[in-house]
Amino acid sequence: MLRILLAATMFPVALPALAEEPANPDRDAVIKVLTNQEAAWNRGDLRGFMQGYWNSPELSFYSGRDKRKGWQETYERFQKRYQADGREMGKLSFSDLSVEPLSDTKMLVRGRWKVELKAETLDGLFTLIVEKKPEGWRIVHDHTSAGESQKKAP
Amino acid sequence: MLRILLAATMFPVALPALAEEPANPDRDAVIKVLTNQEAAWNRGDLRGFMQGYWNSPELSFYSGRDKRKGWQETYERFQKRYQADGREMGKLSFSDLSVEPLSDTKMLVRGRWKVELKAETLDGLFTLIVEKKPEGWRIVHDHTSAGESQKKAP
Repeated sequence: MLRILLAATMFPVALPALAEEPANPDRDAVIKVLTNQEAAWNRGDLRGFMQGYWNSPELSFYSGRDKRKGWQETYERFQKRYQADGREMGKLSFSDLSVEPLSDTKMLVRGRWKVELKAETLDGLFTLIVEKKPEGWRIVHDHTSAGESQKKAP
Repeated sequence: MLRILLAATMFPVALPALAEEPANPDRDAVIKVLTNQEAAWNRGDLRGFMQGYWNSPELSFYSGRDKRKGWQETYERFQKRYQADGREMGKLSFSDLSVEPLSDTKMLVRGRWKVELKAETLDGLFTLIVEKKPEGWRIVHDHTSAGESQKKAP
């Protein structure tokens, strides 16, 4: 024990996890769901992106005044918006993430999203309920909102 | 026990709470927070409306791409949008409410909001985290989104 304390004192920089907060594998797993979503989106893999969502008719996705119910309907919304003729997926990034446990099996995740397209940048906020399912942590509810689109000067 | 079963069998219509779902005072209290908000708004009482929110610098309010932090900042946003010169509060209504326990002290509340003004109707969706505080159930996080404003024909 003394030896461990001594090591921590001598090499604080090498032990950031000890110095800050305890390791939390659930938190890490939830963040991984989002980083996997970013990576999938940015290689044009919409189905890969959709793996972060609970594959259930009970999935709920809110944006603007529109409710989508179920994985399939949510997938089709993304297809129409980002994969239809003349559309592009662009570059997705998440930032300002906050991850907060609600119970042993549910987390509240909040943050910003941004999609950079050729002619404009879309961005806004999201609130997610992420739940531990047999297949892993999955988004069960997504509320997304956007600011006014920022067009690039022509 | 037999007598209770018999009574429930004989008078099912008189015992809707037994037949449907058990009474849930927490759920009722959360719904009351929202009905109180509607009533306060519709008598022009913005401070009364704000009583549904956790009176804390930690309150979070998301709309569009904007994050508000804290009760005071959230209150000022509502003042600017609905009580500034030439603005009106209109008539607020909530609908399509879904209330789901997340833990003993937290609930997820989802629904639609609508504000009817003289010249237009604003509407959209909300996702709330409502938490049991010493002072009662209070909204600790609100994510609100709006559809395009629906202008009335002039």
